[in-house]
Amino acid sequence: MDALIRRIAAEGKNLGGGILKVDAFINHQVDPVLMQECGRELARRFARVGVTKVLTAEISGIAPALCAATVLGVPVLYARKQRPITMPDQVYLTVAPSHTKGRPIELMVSPEYLGAGDRVLIIDDFLASGETILALARLVQAAGGTVVGIGVVIEKTFEGGREAVMRLGVPVEALARISDMSHGKIVFADVTEPSRGAATY
Amino acid sequence: MDALIRRIAAEGKNLGGGILKVDAFINHQVDPVLMQECGRELARRFARVGVTKVLTAEISGIAPALCAATVLGVPVLYARKQRPITMPDQVYLTVAPSHTKGRPIELMVSPEYLGAGDRVLIIDDFLASGETILALARLVQAAGGTVVGIGVVIEKTFEGGREAVMRLGVPVEALARISDMSHGKIVFADVTEPSRGAATY
Repeated sequence: MDALIRRIAAEGKNLGGGILKVDAFINHQVDPVLMQECGRELARRFARVGVTKVLTAEISGIAPALCAATVLGVPVLYARKQRPITMPDQVYLTVAPSHTKGRPIELMVSPEYLGAGDRVLIIDDFLASGETILALARLVQAAGGTVVGIGVVIEKTFEGGREAVMRLGVPVEALARISDMSHGKIVFADVTEPSRGAATY
Repeated sequence: MDALIRRIAAEGKNLGGGILKVDAFINHQVDPVLMQECGRELARRFARVGVTKVLTAEISGIAPALCAATVLGVPVLYARKQRPITMPDQVYLTVAPSHTKGRPIELMVSPEYLGAGDRVLIIDDFLASGETILALARLVQAAGGTVVGIGVVIEKTFEGGREAVMRLGVPVEALARISDMSHGKIVFADVTEPSRGAATY
C-alpha cells in the first residue's frame, strides 16, 4: 500500500536489531486517516472469505483491526494479556513467546465472544516471527472456530513469520513488506509482486 | 446517546461492587458501528474547542479515541502502561491509582508526540473515580500542552469522577451516565438534562 510505504520510508526508524519504530503513526501515536486506509485495504483483500469476526491482540493490533472490522461490518475481538475482572473464570488462554518483550505473554479470550460458527480474520500491526498470530490462531481453534485469513500492516520478511503462519493454510496479506533492515536500512519488498524484488524508498 | 444507552441496558451486566461489564461491545469485543457512533458524537460535542490531539490510555480507550480522532481529523496518542523498547529513555510518566486493578498503574507518553502547542481532548471508555483522566491531564501539563476537554463513553456518576476532573476547568462530556448500580440495578441519569433525574431502562 503506497501511502503506508511512503510513510514508513519518511518517518519509520530503524533502531537496530530488527526493531522498526513506527510510533509516530501506528504504535503510540496513530494517524487515523492512514489507519482507515489500512483498514479499508485489509477489508478489501478479505472481502470474499466470509469473515464473521476480526481477532487481534491488544494493544497495537486494536487500531488496524477496528478499522478493518468497520469496513467488513463485523465485530472485532481483542485478546487480552491480563485477565480483567469482567472476564469469566473459564477462558481460552494460550502463551506466545515474545522476542520484543523478552518473556512469554499470555493471550486470552472469553468463550462468550468466540465460538464454533466464527470465521475469523486475524489482524495485527506486525508480522515478524509469527508467534502472536499463531497464538491467536490457537485461540480460534480452541473455540472451534475457523481462521479464514491473516492480515498485517507491516511484515518483516526476514524474521520467518510468513513461513510460520503459512502452515495455517489461509491467505496472508501484508500492506507493507520490509525485506532488509541490516546496517540501518529499511528496504521494502514489492508487496504485490514479490518476484520483482526489493525496492528501496 | 440513545443507541449506547439501549445497548448497555440490553447487554451490560452489573457484576456488583460498581463493576459494569460491557465486554460484548466495548471492552473486549467491540461493535465498530456503535463505536463509530460514539466517536462521531464525542467529536461533535468538542468540535469547537480547537483540538489538535486526542489522548487516551491503553487499552480500552483506544477504540473510542480513534473513532473521535478520525472525525476531528487529528492524531490520537495512547499513553502506554509499559515502556516499549521503541520509546526514548526520557518520557513523561505519571502514576494513577487503579481501583479495578488493585494497584497503581504507570502511564507514559513520549515527548516526541506531545508538546506545548497541543490542545488535547482526553477520551476514555469510563469515567469512574477520574484517576486515569487526571493522570492523563498531568501528562499533558508536563508536556506544556493544554487540556481542552474530557469525553468518555460511560460515566458512573456515583464514583465521584466528575467532581474530581471538574477541577481541570474544561468541558466534561459523557455519552451514557449511570447513576446507580446498587442491588444489581443499572440506572441511567438523563444525559442531556441531568436535572430531570434518573431513568431506568
